[in-house]
Amino acid sequence: MHKEKLQDIGEKELINRLGKFMPKHQTSDDCALIKTKNENLLVNNDSLVENVHFNDITISPEDLGWKAVVCNISDLLSSGSKKTIGITISLILPAKTEWVWVEELYKGINKALKEYGGIILGGDCSKGNQKTISITAFGVQGELELRRNACKPGDIILTTGIHGLSKLGFMIQNKTNFDKNISLNERLTIKSIERFCRPQINPNILKNLLKTRSNKNIHRIGCTDSSDGLFQAVQDLAIASKCKAIINYEKLPKDKDWPKGDKWDEYYFYGGEDYELVFSLPLKWAKNISKLDKNIKEIGFFAEGEPSIEFKEKNKNKLLKNKPFRHF
Amino acid sequence: MHKEKLQDIGEKELINRLGKFMPKHQTSDDCALIKTKNENLLVNNDSLVENVHFNDITISPEDLGWKAVVCNISDLLSSGSKKTIGITISLILPAKTEWVWVEELYKGINKALKEYGGIILGGDCSKGNQKTISITAFGVQGELELRRNACKPGDIILTTGIHGLSKLGFMIQNKTNFDKNISLNERLTIKSIERFCRPQINPNILKNLLKTRSNKNIHRIGCTDSSDGLFQAVQDLAIASKCKAIINYEKLPKDKDWPKGDKWDEYYFYGGEDYELVFSLPLKWAKNISKLDKNIKEIGFFAEGEPSIEFKEKNKNKLLKNKPFRHF
Repeated sequence: MHKEKLQDIGEKELINRLGKFMPKHQTSDDCALIKTKNENLLVNNDSLVENVHFNDITISPEDLGWKAVVCNISDLLSSGSKKTIGITISLILPAKTEWVWVEELYKGINKALKEYGGIILGGDCSKGNQKTISITAFGVQGELELRRNACKPGDIILTTGIHGLSKLGFMIQNKTNFDKNISLNERLTIKSIERFCRPQINPNILKNLLKTRSNKNIHRIGCTDSSDGLFQAVQDLAIASKCKAIINYEKLPKDKDWPKGDKWDEYYFYGGEDYELVFSLPLKWAKNISKLDKNIKEIGFFAEGEPSIEFKEKNKNKLLKNKPFRHF
Repeated sequence: MHKEKLQDIGEKELINRLGKFMPKHQTSDDCALIKTKNENLLVNNDSLVENVHFNDITISPEDLGWKAVVCNISDLLSSGSKKTIGITISLILPAKTEWVWVEELYKGINKALKEYGGIILGGDCSKGNQKTISITAFGVQGELELRRNACKPGDIILTTGIHGLSKLGFMIQNKTNFDKNISLNERLTIKSIERFCRPQINPNILKNLLKTRSNKNIHRIGCTDSSDGLFQAVQDLAIASKCKAIINYEKLPKDKDWPKGDKWDEYYFYGGEDYELVFSLPLKWAKNISKLDKNIKEIGFFAEGEPSIEFKEKNKNKLLKNKPFRHF
């Protein structure tokens, strides 16, 4: 069966078809219009490049669309966005790309927007030899400013959930051969693939932060997401906030069937794409929120000192010699 | 001499260096922040892909940076943006790209921002096998909404300047062999290369439109820019506004040394990247503004009828059989 390709369609018809994914009141004009009400906007852009960030073997176009939206909304959330306004989508696609691929991608995009809010504000498509999905997402800054440089010595470091699962999901999808003595049970396998292909975020965190705030004068807290891995997230916070992070290895939330060993610790710290938040709060606030939301766990604290990371358990410091994912 | 490449630098150092091109108050956080004052925002994204939209032979990285900004601000202007807030820059670059290329690109970006206003709000860079510069630009919607779908039967069609020059500049840079009987003088050659490499826009158009408005109740006028060529611009207006465009060939503003012939008419209508505005106004307003700004020329009018384009001079209608640039 001949599958319709972009080169069979032509640019004008393609733009028409993409326009049909947009809400009716958004016309296909030169620009997208965003109505603001004296609120500050948060803007985030993430580009996913074929064979760098994804490939056809490990993820379907529908899941890719979902994930492209979620990784952007996760960045908005990690800055304190209380509402996603919408996204613009810029695609670069080879002429031989099948139209059904684009359709599936948009299906995933729209599912994620339905789940987390926001509309498609605009989109365009250019020819290129490597599939690229570049999404710019717009959110409204909420009362709490979550910023990388707002951690303070004495703050507790917390995370919203388990790390490493997405990396495991990727490896399973990529048919990685694990050591013979590792047995992954079905539950963990399914959960990891789900995490890699359909990551979720929890926008309720902002309401819970406001609800449990011990001191109403605090409007800025330290935060980033773990898109580049837990280690990278803690390091970014430490550098931006100019303080030292002490991680309590024993307190790190792990899946109950997560295998033991240095390699599995590496996946946990350096895997990335889990889209959990890593943030810091004064002690009382930290206690309050981890009581309210059982997924949130204290994993260490910030101290005065040169920007760096140490484990409370000295024998674990060898883990930090591993470099994080290097793009170039 | 060894030229430093991105693969020699690594991602973190690259992000540090890109951060230095940003104003000091913009910190490298997960998101960019835009402060709004109850104004509506216009957002535009344009991606330039190597060997599709540009190549190393025809344009320098500094000129490319300039042009990437200008094509975005042109789109903002053609929607009625009264002020450019800033841009975010998303680069995709091969690991073997030389750092000096990035530096030159940013030099051009900053020159254009200095000329037309706006700051760098954020930027990121991913690895990929084809250089891609994707810029998202933010502007403030002014009093006049310029929209593709706001043309009316009876409106005069106007343009802010000469078309075809950028295409000629591209062909000269690309060492195109012209017919032997064509002689291009030095002035036109220089002007065309300048138009292709360093296109300019004229933001004063909005002030002049407000100054010459004959009826203060009109807040929306038909407009787009000629980035995809004059024919495409008129067609987009006709389709979005559901009316018929009659073009007066004799009135089209051409360079005084522009060669004659069907091929040169094609370059004029289908060349693109001139970044002139194509817009429509009621008769009186059109007379007023073309008196105030001598570069603005009336080139035809809109009539009731199926969305289409016709020449007043019937013998020129053969020109319309040519398809516009087809991306796929």
